[in-house]
Amino acid sequence: MSRQTNLRPNIDRLWSSLMRSAEIGKTPKGGLKRLALSEEDAVMRRQFIDWCEEAGCTVRVDPLGNIFAERAGTDPDAKSVLVGSHLDTQVRGGRFDGILGVLAGLEVVRTLNEHNLATRRPVTIVNWTNEEGARFEPPMIGSAVFTGQKALEFAYSRLDRDGISLGDALEKVAFKGGDHVSVDQFDSLFELHIEQGPRLDDAKLQVGVVTGAFGVRGFVVEVFGETGHVGPTPMPARRNALVGAAHVTLAIDAIGWSHHETGSKSTTMRIRAEPNLLGALPDYVEMTCDMRHPDEAVVIEMLEAFKAQIPQLEERSRCRIVIKEAWSYGGMRYDPDCVGLVRDAAQRLGYTTMDLLTEAGHDAMHVAEFLPTAMIFTPCEGGLSHNEAENVTIADIEPGVNVLLQAVVERANQI
Amino acid sequence: MSRQTNLRPNIDRLWSSLMRSAEIGKTPKGGLKRLALSEEDAVMRRQFIDWCEEAGCTVRVDPLGNIFAERAGTDPDAKSVLVGSHLDTQVRGGRFDGILGVLAGLEVVRTLNEHNLATRRPVTIVNWTNEEGARFEPPMIGSAVFTGQKALEFAYSRLDRDGISLGDALEKVAFKGGDHVSVDQFDSLFELHIEQGPRLDDAKLQVGVVTGAFGVRGFVVEVFGETGHVGPTPMPARRNALVGAAHVTLAIDAIGWSHHETGSKSTTMRIRAEPNLLGALPDYVEMTCDMRHPDEAVVIEMLEAFKAQIPQLEERSRCRIVIKEAWSYGGMRYDPDCVGLVRDAAQRLGYTTMDLLTEAGHDAMHVAEFLPTAMIFTPCEGGLSHNEAENVTIADIEPGVNVLLQAVVERANQI
Repeated sequence: MSRQTNLRPNIDRLWSSLMRSAEIGKTPKGGLKRLALSEEDAVMRRQFIDWCEEAGCTVRVDPLGNIFAERAGTDPDAKSVLVGSHLDTQVRGGRFDGILGVLAGLEVVRTLNEHNLATRRPVTIVNWTNEEGARFEPPMIGSAVFTGQKALEFAYSRLDRDGISLGDALEKVAFKGGDHVSVDQFDSLFELHIEQGPRLDDAKLQVGVVTGAFGVRGFVVEVFGETGHVGPTPMPARRNALVGAAHVTLAIDAIGWSHHETGSKSTTMRIRAEPNLLGALPDYVEMTCDMRHPDEAVVIEMLEAFKAQIPQLEERSRCRIVIKEAWSYGGMRYDPDCVGLVRDAAQRLGYTTMDLLTEAGHDAMHVAEFLPTAMIFTPCEGGLSHNEAENVTIADIEPGVNVLLQAVVERANQI
Repeated sequence: MSRQTNLRPNIDRLWSSLMRSAEIGKTPKGGLKRLALSEEDAVMRRQFIDWCEEAGCTVRVDPLGNIFAERAGTDPDAKSVLVGSHLDTQVRGGRFDGILGVLAGLEVVRTLNEHNLATRRPVTIVNWTNEEGARFEPPMIGSAVFTGQKALEFAYSRLDRDGISLGDALEKVAFKGGDHVSVDQFDSLFELHIEQGPRLDDAKLQVGVVTGAFGVRGFVVEVFGETGHVGPTPMPARRNALVGAAHVTLAIDAIGWSHHETGSKSTTMRIRAEPNLLGALPDYVEMTCDMRHPDEAVVIEMLEAFKAQIPQLEERSRCRIVIKEAWSYGGMRYDPDCVGLVRDAAQRLGYTTMDLLTEAGHDAMHVAEFLPTAMIFTPCEGGLSHNEAENVTIADIEPGVNVLLQAVVERANQI
């Protein structure tokens, strides 16, 4: 099959699907709250499946609720090209994060249908369960179970804030599927996503060619102080865990600044204090923190720098400070062939591009350990994401969707 | 009636009642969790009423659940002397905070009964509802409604963390009483309490003569940042509300240290962040803070010093920082006659004493605005309170209880 350089997606049709999605879990400020496996997520999933079936796809749902909608290829032995992302959102999320990648996958299939074009390999649109981690932790658990990096039973046992397990939530919304879908059934993965950062928007470039991922270190810091009465306990006798937590937070922030010109980020994102009451000195604080850098070696150095500071933070606050648990992901480079397909498509179509690393976590990072993978970024207004004001225009997404279509068709037709 | 200098309470009997109380809501670490109007509090209240009725008292319960147990006097026109404190505790509270004051009041009545001694004025043991504020805020609400400083409907509408109102909680434990009990029915108040600070213990003194209260300022600080993705959002584009909160916490701590040699305390005691999720920059933090100093003028100065720093804290964190609400109490001096009775009793009994101001809030501070009031402190091991390890010995409390008995009997027999 010859190269279809004149093949174009119907961006208005895609936009209309995005705007339908934007109604499901809409927040007063115009964002989305569509937590994984909530009622809203279930409504969106059923809408997505309806669309896929209308587009002639065969839909399978695996035991973790990941949805795979396959458009058949011409070669019965060829493995399928995956294209997709996630339909769940943060608590105060935007309308495009993840959703664009899934619905652009759908648009690829719709365009192929409309032009009556067959591909050698099947093309499978995927929606990963619980990418955000806003309801169940860790994030990206759907792809982690799909690739075998996490056990299904581990995923089922994750609890939300109300103590509901992911397994029970799946059953409640009837998305605990019975289809066995495994990574070896697939050839490759393409994930289109808004950048979630400002670089493309600032530089007025149309397409981000994502060549890999930042190294990420996450960790939980515990601060142990001593409770007592906030009135009579003299200052020198105190061990206020919130004072310890404040020292930790500023140290972590400073580490982010120390390498920020080469792209470092360092964040305290979550806090919980005990007993957290009027009249009582806090004796315990738990904080969840995150460090990122394009260079895996630097992110390791950043984490070591924090660890090295702990004794002096303990001394200043008279609290005991412990790293309770830690995790890491990212730091890899994507498949040169898949990335090449993206870069070539953008070049053929005459788009301005920038090579980028993804700074956010994506399901593609799990899949990339097992399948040739590439990501494409669209610009994102002001770089704002995980925010109800997250925004893109039709003009922002059209180049990325065009590139996705071209790259997926190329890959699906490769011999 | 002549002075009863040889009259002695039965400290073993009091200790036995304290140890019975220590079983009701006992924590694994040997403290108490007996939140206001919980099932445990109800069990303790019923035990207290049983004891009072066994001691011949007439028990009344007002619409806020404050319990008044009156031992009649000989003069039908004489107003009653109040003696008591509270039976509720913090979430991780100790066995003596408040409880000692109520059960010592009971011991006063038991001792008078045992010696068949009448007093001119009635003596009324009081248990105030929700002193701690650990379940419903503000603390000391029982005495505030009793004195008319807070409206009953305001108190009823206060919600706990599960959204249960104080009014509903009162009905559930059947302590929404029908008795009209008002401040003008009483002559004076004596409250015995553990010091909750280390001064008596450090100086090895037996009785604290409480001459008044520290000035207290409480306030809620709001920090407004901006959410976004913790990955791609560059450091210079961030407004992480937890970074703002850390700057505020350290500034408030430093203000506590700045006057600590004259007794200042300054505390961040509670924190709540939003959205408080993995992957999202916090855009909102609410903190509850507290400043105290013996001198009302200095506590005002401390609060002003914090307010003056807000612009630079905002600049450092790129967040907006607002004082949302503020309250104040304390700063008064207790009634010279009542304090004099306490001091004279301690002197007659040969105890070593120290004049103190109370640094913690007590119901006596509300009542002191309307009735002649005094407080007596016992030593408190290591000054530790609002803590499961809070401790006193029989020897620690005996002098204070003796002084309470003498002072109450003196006052009750004054012409």
